[in-house]
Amino acid sequence: MSEGAEGRRARGGGGAARRAERTAVRIEVAKYIERNIPNFEVLNDEALSIIEANAETVLEEIGVNFVENPEALARWKEAGADVRGERVRLPKGLARELCKTAPSSYVQHARNPERSVTVGGRNLVLAPVYGPPFVRDADGGRRYATIDDFHKFVKLAYMSKWLHHSGGTVCEPTDVPVNKRHLDMLLAHMTLSDKPYMGSVTEPVRAQDSVEMSDILFGGLNDRTVMTSLININSPLTFDGIMMGALEVYARANQAAIISPFIVGGAMAPVTVAGTLTQVLAEVLAGVAYSQLIRKGAPVIFGAFVTSIDMNSGAPTFGTPEASLITYGAGQLARRLGLPYRSAGGFTGSKVPDAQAAYESSNSLNMGLLAGVNFMLHSCGWLEGGLVSSFEKFVMDADQLGVLHGLAKGIDISDNGQAMDAIREVGPGGHYLGCAHTQANFKTAFWRTELLDYKPYETWEEEGARDTIALARNRVTKLLNDYQKPAIDPAIEEALNDYVAKKKASMPDAFM
Amino acid sequence: MSEGAEGRRARGGGGAARRAERTAVRIEVAKYIERNIPNFEVLNDEALSIIEANAETVLEEIGVNFVENPEALARWKEAGADVRGERVRLPKGLARELCKTAPSSYVQHARNPERSVTVGGRNLVLAPVYGPPFVRDADGGRRYATIDDFHKFVKLAYMSKWLHHSGGTVCEPTDVPVNKRHLDMLLAHMTLSDKPYMGSVTEPVRAQDSVEMSDILFGGLNDRTVMTSLININSPLTFDGIMMGALEVYARANQAAIISPFIVGGAMAPVTVAGTLTQVLAEVLAGVAYSQLIRKGAPVIFGAFVTSIDMNSGAPTFGTPEASLITYGAGQLARRLGLPYRSAGGFTGSKVPDAQAAYESSNSLNMGLLAGVNFMLHSCGWLEGGLVSSFEKFVMDADQLGVLHGLAKGIDISDNGQAMDAIREVGPGGHYLGCAHTQANFKTAFWRTELLDYKPYETWEEEGARDTIALARNRVTKLLNDYQKPAIDPAIEEALNDYVAKKKASMPDAFM
Repeated sequence: MSEGAEGRRARGGGGAARRAERTAVRIEVAKYIERNIPNFEVLNDEALSIIEANAETVLEEIGVNFVENPEALARWKEAGADVRGERVRLPKGLARELCKTAPSSYVQHARNPERSVTVGGRNLVLAPVYGPPFVRDADGGRRYATIDDFHKFVKLAYMSKWLHHSGGTVCEPTDVPVNKRHLDMLLAHMTLSDKPYMGSVTEPVRAQDSVEMSDILFGGLNDRTVMTSLININSPLTFDGIMMGALEVYARANQAAIISPFIVGGAMAPVTVAGTLTQVLAEVLAGVAYSQLIRKGAPVIFGAFVTSIDMNSGAPTFGTPEASLITYGAGQLARRLGLPYRSAGGFTGSKVPDAQAAYESSNSLNMGLLAGVNFMLHSCGWLEGGLVSSFEKFVMDADQLGVLHGLAKGIDISDNGQAMDAIREVGPGGHYLGCAHTQANFKTAFWRTELLDYKPYETWEEEGARDTIALARNRVTKLLNDYQKPAIDPAIEEALNDYVAKKKASMPDAFM
Repeated sequence: MSEGAEGRRARGGGGAARRAERTAVRIEVAKYIERNIPNFEVLNDEALSIIEANAETVLEEIGVNFVENPEALARWKEAGADVRGERVRLPKGLARELCKTAPSSYVQHARNPERSVTVGGRNLVLAPVYGPPFVRDADGGRRYATIDDFHKFVKLAYMSKWLHHSGGTVCEPTDVPVNKRHLDMLLAHMTLSDKPYMGSVTEPVRAQDSVEMSDILFGGLNDRTVMTSLININSPLTFDGIMMGALEVYARANQAAIISPFIVGGAMAPVTVAGTLTQVLAEVLAGVAYSQLIRKGAPVIFGAFVTSIDMNSGAPTFGTPEASLITYGAGQLARRLGLPYRSAGGFTGSKVPDAQAAYESSNSLNMGLLAGVNFMLHSCGWLEGGLVSSFEKFVMDADQLGVLHGLAKGIDISDNGQAMDAIREVGPGGHYLGCAHTQANFKTAFWRTELLDYKPYETWEEEGARDTIALARNRVTKLLNDYQKPAIDPAIEEALNDYVAKKKASMPDAFM
């Protein structure tokens, strides 16, 4: 745990500066999780070998489509694949061989070096919700997201102790033209936060803008990895030209990409867990192999966004046992490939941050930690199947991420952890509250919520019998009030603003 | 999964019989969970050995108190313990040696043989909340529990597909004299449900009543185990005469007991996880050993009720990482002792069934499954730190227990599970909804909630924008309306009623 000294120094005058003097807010940010607990493994070696062999069969016999991307087809042909039309069939072993040059872990640098993260190994990096076109809060209800909402989510992520990453499209700023909004989003992550962030993937030119703006922010990239961006596969077995184009930009610049099947089981993958794992593995093998055709050693993550479909309504469902089993199994497959692993998140299909939202999110978050996930997108703020970024749920989930940090610490078996002195001191029938060992350890012994209610019933009732949504609403307000912009070199900020202004002026607005 | 044919046959005429004809409610009850997934283990062998050695040291050097129980002290002396006053010190190895006669699993018979459960091994038996003096529902708020509430909870447990056990004190019927309420509670479990149940432990004579009523219900017990009852240890290291008296009654009759430290970490145990595990193990070793002094082979469970204290307010906290780590570790210790394991539950400190309640409960429930728990008390309905049995939360948690069933199934790696035919049939860019494999498997492929909302946003809003509490309120009403009493031999029911009437008439009311 380190304290961000730079978080306390407000830039700019006026209200913000005066508030800074009054409150002297201290921003605590936890280091990314370094697990001291094992991974939970549901598949034995035989099952893993079957799935791996099946994935090779899928790649060889069925193949994958690289659509609207003739250069990709040429690359595959040169690499030894059987290419017919847009279909690419990979001889057994080819994809796995190509994947070997992908690193098993990488550092994603943040502009504040204390916020840099190492993705891979036993680590877990937590990033917020990604992609919703709507936002919801207790006061304003559900509505289309704006750039103002976007700024607020970036600030909340910056203020969240247990979030290591600022994320990417924390919500879609629908009031900004679609061809320009990536500029405003990047600018927000770069200037309102000093945590690591994601780049744009919606067009290759926007990926290129992301690289160029990062180059300004970091004063020259020189191959340093400063973005981890989300490249979805069109499951089943299809790689579209736009996403691959963005991947090509990032791989060439040595920027990291999550190669991620987007699976609604029963619709985009088989209805069974082992079948889904087979398809996920085949897709990731092909995608990661392709990234290495662009640039050997480019950092990539084995992704698996998995949900299942409700066969009655066709709705995607979250926090289900099948999704958990897939997440556990995919983690094993990723580790056998030697790749960092992205999955899980605070997923829910609920429309409001109620008990359903929490059950489903908690199921997913716990599974993510135990499955050995290295990069968890959507770890807070996700609502309504990803259609909505919720302000209240953002701080609710973010608080629960502290539980994951605590669990990951494992059990301290040192002499102090064994506490034999305490047991001797207290003895039968005594109590531990006042004993020396408790006094020495109580401040760090237990994770403590910064949100949930632990008060006596009578106090709770007197204070308005608030439920979690009401408590979260207050916390959102407090965090946004307390927010102070991290320091940034004014020359760099000006250069970023100039870049955005020039790019915006260079093209007409587009809203589709 | 079996369907309770007897659940469809209503006893008695009038409204219930007519309703039965109209609705023909089918009660589905899942078999207890037989895990096909591994246990999650957080301690290595070295750490386990340290904790086990420390527990032996605690028993030998510090010892335990058996209070107000001279016969217990005599038994311990005879068994080779060092007894001074009420303090019993056990030479290293003695307790572990005595524990060896306790069975590693046992069958708890239900009056409906289809509902009998095997406690131990890889199984998980789920039982409802135990002990709260208050109830809460959305309409009536929080109030003292009555026998009418008690009946409703027994009916809800009977109607819950994923609950294998009727439990014990699902709430305290405070309108019945304290010295008589165990009779009404037992009568309710025996006649309103056909699932297995727990006996009374609040006085040895009430344990004896439980045995005698069970003898009537089963037409003679003949050493069959038909109850699993909850014997709490007064942590730290104290065994009170009343609880031990009840244990003695049950052990003599070959009835099962959960020997369970009741731990609020930082108050009744050290503030560290390893220290708490040491104390838990020492206490369980002494308690189980004592049960075997009463009757070798008496079925007992290694219990661990664990929460931690909020050091700011002194309130117990739930769903915390420390509680999870203790639960995982205690499971390992129980398995090394060869005993069935009880821990976890749908725990929360929240006052209402909101997101906090669900986060905390879900953390605990998931941990319970993965920790290898064999008997999970409080798996549904617990609210406000165990002060309140919540009707809505009962059905909310009970629905989530289905998630545990799904997870425990593990991954089917059969040819059908591998689904290669489906992947071949669908190919790149296709979809799986209509393929033959999906059609053949969709009905059983995914767990499906019977409570939560999967509807499109617009439908959900038109139907009143209901949150989980509102949905649960409706489900409670529906289940209670649909409830039909399981068939019972009228002569047995009459004999039970007579027993209760005579016992009640034999003593004055007591309310303290």
